[in-house]
Amino acid sequence: MTQQCTEKPFPEKPYSQKTRPEILSVSTIAKTHIFEVQSVDLRFSNGEKRTYERLTPARKSSVMVIPIQGENMILVKEYAVGPERYELGFPKGMIDLCEEPVVSANRELQEEIGFAAKKLEFIRSLYHSPSHMYGLMHVFIAQDLYPSQLTGDEPEPLEIVYFPLRKIDKLLSDPTFSEARNLSALFLLRDYLNANGLNASGLKHSVEADLCSR
Amino acid sequence: MTQQCTEKPFPEKPYSQKTRPEILSVSTIAKTHIFEVQSVDLRFSNGEKRTYERLTPARKSSVMVIPIQGENMILVKEYAVGPERYELGFPKGMIDLCEEPVVSANRELQEEIGFAAKKLEFIRSLYHSPSHMYGLMHVFIAQDLYPSQLTGDEPEPLEIVYFPLRKIDKLLSDPTFSEARNLSALFLLRDYLNANGLNASGLKHSVEADLCSR
Repeated sequence: MTQQCTEKPFPEKPYSQKTRPEILSVSTIAKTHIFEVQSVDLRFSNGEKRTYERLTPARKSSVMVIPIQGENMILVKEYAVGPERYELGFPKGMIDLCEEPVVSANRELQEEIGFAAKKLEFIRSLYHSPSHMYGLMHVFIAQDLYPSQLTGDEPEPLEIVYFPLRKIDKLLSDPTFSEARNLSALFLLRDYLNANGLNASGLKHSVEADLCSR
Repeated sequence: MTQQCTEKPFPEKPYSQKTRPEILSVSTIAKTHIFEVQSVDLRFSNGEKRTYERLTPARKSSVMVIPIQGENMILVKEYAVGPERYELGFPKGMIDLCEEPVVSANRELQEEIGFAAKKLEFIRSLYHSPSHMYGLMHVFIAQDLYPSQLTGDEPEPLEIVYFPLRKIDKLLSDPTFSEARNLSALFLLRDYLNANGLNASGLKHSVEADLCSR
């Protein structure tokens, strides 16, 4: 028996009243382990026809987690095969089948940085490049961390980077930290800290977490 | 004779000193009009082997433009085949061969909203999801607009949306405006306005542009 789970629906724009193009046909033109490319024949409302391509329409969602420990946030360096180098970013990963996003967030934390969180707050969802593909990414802020390690599917342990919250603005303007989802998450973190009247030194202090240095 | 142009290099992280995995082999496993999928065999420094996939390693860059006119910014609604609906976002497009990014920015403006800009300021580059692919997107702020139309390859005229600058925070928290690059651009715009001591009513006023309503 196949397990059925309903994913959180993609937020709809109430202001999109425009007549959508008619989809004349959809066909899969390439399929690999990870990617599936579909060709979509369209007729726009003015009669114009176009063939567009899009990637894996499977609506698999993911999570990104901003872990905060004392006056630092925790990032990881993970190998990215696109640019063939290590990239600094927040822990992230796919949501397993039927898993609640907040559970995925806590699992990824344990797999990637060896901490679990007593406090996980959802702050926003992001889309990923909807012109060709889409997948929701749910962003969380994690606080009150305590040591807990889970084994993920990473080929090697990730290098962990503690970054001072008071230097957020420096990272926001760092040209080497420019992946759009990580950058959006960092802007969201700054707003979160401001909205909660917090700054680098004003964050709730987790003694338990601070006792544990890795 | 093929024209050769050097693209702006991808910013390198000075803090990435970790030994990169060895690339054992690279092969193209799928190719369509738009996408190329490569399979990359890797050996990590700890001896672990993995096969990763990545998309079109062609380093094609693009531009995104935030046009400001009076107290509004200008966005467009463009059909996105991923979610099969119209998406609100800033004008954007690929950089043509040997074209300067600032020239692409002014061209896209004219193609998508029917304005050119006397003032175009580069504010930041963004990467696009470097784990699987990458392409730099250069973000510009356009001011001092004047009517000028160019014909692009759009299948239909784009719907143009004037959005008040004073409502930026509303759009930043709108769950239907969540594509990560557009969201990053909007955060960058807010910082730009704050850094320049500007707000919705304090922007340099372009009478010429305001005289032209479309």
